[in-house]
Amino acid sequence: MSAVAALLRPRSVAVVGASADATKMTGRPVGYLQKYGFAGEIWPVNPRAESIAGLRCYPDVASLPGAPDAAIVLLGPDRAEAAVRDLAARGCRAAIVLASGYGESNEEGARRQAALKDAAGAMRLLGPNTIGLVNLTDGMMLSATGALEVGDLPAGRISVVSQSGGILGSLLSRAADRGIGFAKLVSTGNEADLDSSDLLEHLVEDEATDVIAVYMEGLRRPEAFKRAARRAAELGKPVVVYKVGRSESGARAATSHTGALAGADRVYDALFRQHGVIRAETFTDLLDIPAALAAGRRTEGDRVAILTSTGGAGTLLADNCGLAGIEVPAPDEATTRALATLLDEDPAAIGRNPVDVTLAGLRPDLFRGAITALLESPSYDAVVVVIGSSALATPDIVAGAILACQAGSTKPILAYVSPHAPHLVRLLNGQGIPAFATPESCASVLRALRRRALPPAPAAIAPDSAVLAGLPAGNLNEVESKAVFARFGVPVARERAVSDAAGAEAAARALGGEVVLKILSRAIAHKSDIGGVKVGLAAAEVPAACVAMLERLRAAGAPAPEGFLVQERVRGGVEMILGFHRDPQLGPVVLLGAGGVAAEVFQDTALRLLPIARADAEAMVSELKAATLLRGYRGAPPADTGALVDTVMAFAAMAGAAGERLLEAEINPLLVLPQGEGARAVDGLAVLR
Amino acid sequence: MSAVAALLRPRSVAVVGASADATKMTGRPVGYLQKYGFAGEIWPVNPRAESIAGLRCYPDVASLPGAPDAAIVLLGPDRAEAAVRDLAARGCRAAIVLASGYGESNEEGARRQAALKDAAGAMRLLGPNTIGLVNLTDGMMLSATGALEVGDLPAGRISVVSQSGGILGSLLSRAADRGIGFAKLVSTGNEADLDSSDLLEHLVEDEATDVIAVYMEGLRRPEAFKRAARRAAELGKPVVVYKVGRSESGARAATSHTGALAGADRVYDALFRQHGVIRAETFTDLLDIPAALAAGRRTEGDRVAILTSTGGAGTLLADNCGLAGIEVPAPDEATTRALATLLDEDPAAIGRNPVDVTLAGLRPDLFRGAITALLESPSYDAVVVVIGSSALATPDIVAGAILACQAGSTKPILAYVSPHAPHLVRLLNGQGIPAFATPESCASVLRALRRRALPPAPAAIAPDSAVLAGLPAGNLNEVESKAVFARFGVPVARERAVSDAAGAEAAARALGGEVVLKILSRAIAHKSDIGGVKVGLAAAEVPAACVAMLERLRAAGAPAPEGFLVQERVRGGVEMILGFHRDPQLGPVVLLGAGGVAAEVFQDTALRLLPIARADAEAMVSELKAATLLRGYRGAPPADTGALVDTVMAFAAMAGAAGERLLEAEINPLLVLPQGEGARAVDGLAVLR
Repeated sequence: MSAVAALLRPRSVAVVGASADATKMTGRPVGYLQKYGFAGEIWPVNPRAESIAGLRCYPDVASLPGAPDAAIVLLGPDRAEAAVRDLAARGCRAAIVLASGYGESNEEGARRQAALKDAAGAMRLLGPNTIGLVNLTDGMMLSATGALEVGDLPAGRISVVSQSGGILGSLLSRAADRGIGFAKLVSTGNEADLDSSDLLEHLVEDEATDVIAVYMEGLRRPEAFKRAARRAAELGKPVVVYKVGRSESGARAATSHTGALAGADRVYDALFRQHGVIRAETFTDLLDIPAALAAGRRTEGDRVAILTSTGGAGTLLADNCGLAGIEVPAPDEATTRALATLLDEDPAAIGRNPVDVTLAGLRPDLFRGAITALLESPSYDAVVVVIGSSALATPDIVAGAILACQAGSTKPILAYVSPHAPHLVRLLNGQGIPAFATPESCASVLRALRRRALPPAPAAIAPDSAVLAGLPAGNLNEVESKAVFARFGVPVARERAVSDAAGAEAAARALGGEVVLKILSRAIAHKSDIGGVKVGLAAAEVPAACVAMLERLRAAGAPAPEGFLVQERVRGGVEMILGFHRDPQLGPVVLLGAGGVAAEVFQDTALRLLPIARADAEAMVSELKAATLLRGYRGAPPADTGALVDTVMAFAAMAGAAGERLLEAEINPLLVLPQGEGARAVDGLAVLR
Repeated sequence: MSAVAALLRPRSVAVVGASADATKMTGRPVGYLQKYGFAGEIWPVNPRAESIAGLRCYPDVASLPGAPDAAIVLLGPDRAEAAVRDLAARGCRAAIVLASGYGESNEEGARRQAALKDAAGAMRLLGPNTIGLVNLTDGMMLSATGALEVGDLPAGRISVVSQSGGILGSLLSRAADRGIGFAKLVSTGNEADLDSSDLLEHLVEDEATDVIAVYMEGLRRPEAFKRAARRAAELGKPVVVYKVGRSESGARAATSHTGALAGADRVYDALFRQHGVIRAETFTDLLDIPAALAAGRRTEGDRVAILTSTGGAGTLLADNCGLAGIEVPAPDEATTRALATLLDEDPAAIGRNPVDVTLAGLRPDLFRGAITALLESPSYDAVVVVIGSSALATPDIVAGAILACQAGSTKPILAYVSPHAPHLVRLLNGQGIPAFATPESCASVLRALRRRALPPAPAAIAPDSAVLAGLPAGNLNEVESKAVFARFGVPVARERAVSDAAGAEAAARALGGEVVLKILSRAIAHKSDIGGVKVGLAAAEVPAACVAMLERLRAAGAPAPEGFLVQERVRGGVEMILGFHRDPQLGPVVLLGAGGVAAEVFQDTALRLLPIARADAEAMVSELKAATLLRGYRGAPPADTGALVDTVMAFAAMAGAAGERLLEAEINPLLVLPQGEGARAVDGLAVLR
């Protein structure tokens, strides 16, 4: 039994600092263990009580009748460390520390947290600053959350990992209202030891868990998270993450809350996408998407039929579907005929989607017939039934029809409940029909239900110290940078590095045609800002241009350059930017963007964590708005997208092989020429440590 | 008394087609009138009943004891027309027709709807295909919505206009759950006569109404809407609109639902912005924003303090605020000191925002002190108090503290309720503290609370038939187009129109320097696609270029051009596009966008309805992402933004004066030169009818 398993399904539990006063926070855990029917041993520890809630109370950890599988420590930060040390000495497998005042507060707290971790030794720790855990599968609570005061918590097949205890409590009470059941919920708090990846890893293998919802402030061990996410995908268990830190102020609050450092949010997006993780965009989605996934049905496409007895709500839903990229197509001919017969040829309903049955009225046979026709239609991947105010009084007509039709199809059937009707939402969710109270949720859920195979993880590229051998730390100059890129197959403009004006002229004659002249200098990363680039020179003009360029450098007080670079002038093509950097949290990232001003001004970029597969590079290209330009915009010839994808792969291979010494790299611009003519790296920069 | 007033506050009501069976839809209206305490006369009409619900029943409209102020017709579409004719004849002021099967269904229905309108004569009609209206101020219901079955509907100061009856019912039940009270709610349905602008106009003047929420599928009379919105702004009564039709599929569903034609959604955005209307982005916002506004407090800035007893929810809220553009700044020094004293120098709370009082605990005095300190701080425009699970059992600690502090400040205090706790939401809303269950709503509400003065409406420009006199219908050529623009002050590149090659050469010499040669042709709108533009010619090269151009036109089978245009070559500057078109719903629109590919590929455009004020033109510029380019990007000189704004105003003046004959106009590109050098319209097109 792993330590996490010991925490979630202990045979014996020590409750250190338990109070006999059930109304106190410290009185709750023993009460909750009893209330939810924990079958193992409960050992309260408190030197000032003989017994608590009918159980024998022990004066200290040393006096316990055995080594507890798990413990929950209810003491303040001043006394928790000693209790943890005692528990470790007594052979306890894992302990939960609820107290706050550790890493989330200040430096003193951070020191206290390190000492707590030390005191635990080989024993695993959950927390501190956690609300504990709730295991509804087995009726086992190690928590003091007030949310457990709420009566009926339905058990289900969704497990939750939350870095915030308050959010765990919020999800618990919100889900109970909606009839959404949980298997296990764990709050990891400050993650002094066990972190959300540890919990994810465990829950992925949990037989009672089908879907995992994660509330994330930041990741401590991205590699462990990736492994767990991949394993979840293998087992067909979706992982849904709501991550804060999308805005600056949010990121700051996250830091102060758990001490987690939030990485740049778009890199998290890439991480989730590359590992099959569904990202919840709103807090409501963090419950709604898992609830829909737990019903077990996925869609094979994005086409939905909407059946409604209230026109306005159908329109509202269709509009939100459209915004989310879900299609609401009119029915095919056979389905139209089937519906026309059912709906007495009602012209308001025939051939349309949403299918509005207002006139035909709320008849169970009619609903059953219409739902069946829509489920059987090859035009639709899912059906949403809108439940209007008229169903408030007679919920069974619609709910009964949905339930009756469910078995006849494997496509998802969802319900959108238009009036405030929590009893209907609960009724439907409780019977496996995902039901939603907002049109936005319904649309997000339809997106999330789409089945997408996670391609196998691309092989990591082994670092090769030879790649950067002999190159200095700091910025490389353009020739050095592009030489590194070219070794991996990045196509580079024809060019020659020379040391003086005479050499430059000879190089220009050898290249032929108009050339581009640049200074070659490690000290100057932005050559054109300082007059170090001259485009469209004839060979004869080159020597004078070299002299003028040196003069400008001197005038600007810049150091003498290493020499000059003479380059063919590449004309035409679509300008792109291809970059590499290391995210401080998540590691090496490759970025492709529209070139020129577009990447920055219009934020048109696509990101991936390394390593990437060819399919990732292809997806990066098609995610860009600039993909329109590559396809041949306004009569321009289509660009050589294949060569662009090859270049992204070559650049990624370079970054992987270069290893830890490579801090940043960039090709800007990368010109993508017309189909068949390839791509050219026209300028490049690498930064080494 | 206006007809709308007669509908909302009638002294006598005829219920035509009333049923004695209260469980039937047709039995509801009489029941609702009685249940909610209508004080006037109720006259049921039904030939097959002697009395209904204790009231004398009349066999037909002619037998009524007087001319009713208002009537509700519960008959099907086959009999409603006759009833409407009878009511009009009897002198009824206004009637509601609930039946569907009219304009929303098919052509036959549209004819039936026209006949219904005819039958009404001078009597005003609400509907058909409506759920009727609900007046909670006066306890007067003319509706059959099942939502009225719900017990307790709190009265309040928000009125609702909805083009969908189902949505009205949905809002009614959702608001009741949240403790949000309404004044009047009206569903306008198919709007055969009275439309949402009529209702808005009336409700703006209603003394019981402070805020108006509108559910909109499309506008029939935009000018009436604009007038009503301006009047609302004058009276300080916010109008909040949720409009569907944002996606294609939504727009289609709206058409089939009420027969309203949904205009292009971005033009609606412009309409709302220009008339001080707040747009609700989610359906939840359509309740949450009015509820917050009805509390009567507005913010003067976008800085919020978050006070929380549950760290995670504070982070969640701060993150959502950040995404919505609401700042969550750390407290100033004086506030920090005040909080430090209160919170026993707790390091997790001091100098931070969210202010986390987890450690200090849930003490009423502490909450009161902290809320007061934050309200008094000059650093904040509003305070949000997060209510955690710990408040579930003792709601009065937090709620009481908020209520106690409210009177001491005029700044808004909002509550975000983290657990599922509808009783808390109701309690707070009921006492004037806007309370929200999602972090997204809370953030949208903070945006909406910002007080923004609506500048006076810009004067409309009178059409002047002289502007386009003598010009043919269809496309004008470039010289004709730009001549029209230039008359209003649009700066145009120096150029000469000539008829042949010799004239072109002479023109080039006169202009001096490199020139641009273009064919001049009304038949060819996209000259460069057909080889009709040549850039960078010396005068001597011009004649040969003219010959080659004519040859290309002949080869392409294009008609002979009117001549040639020789233009100075304008170099540098930021490329923009400036356009005009007529939205089929909302009228004349001016569009400014980033030029080249950016307007289309990156959707970087700003729209306004005409007429516009200079402040509108300035706002259009600053809304663009391309504003970064205009400010001087990467060392480029700042562009002449003043000249750009002048040009937008000149172009708008041109469009106004040109009047109805002008269908489309475009300057593409408009080059904005460096500061002090102005702007130049380099190409232009106008399309006349």
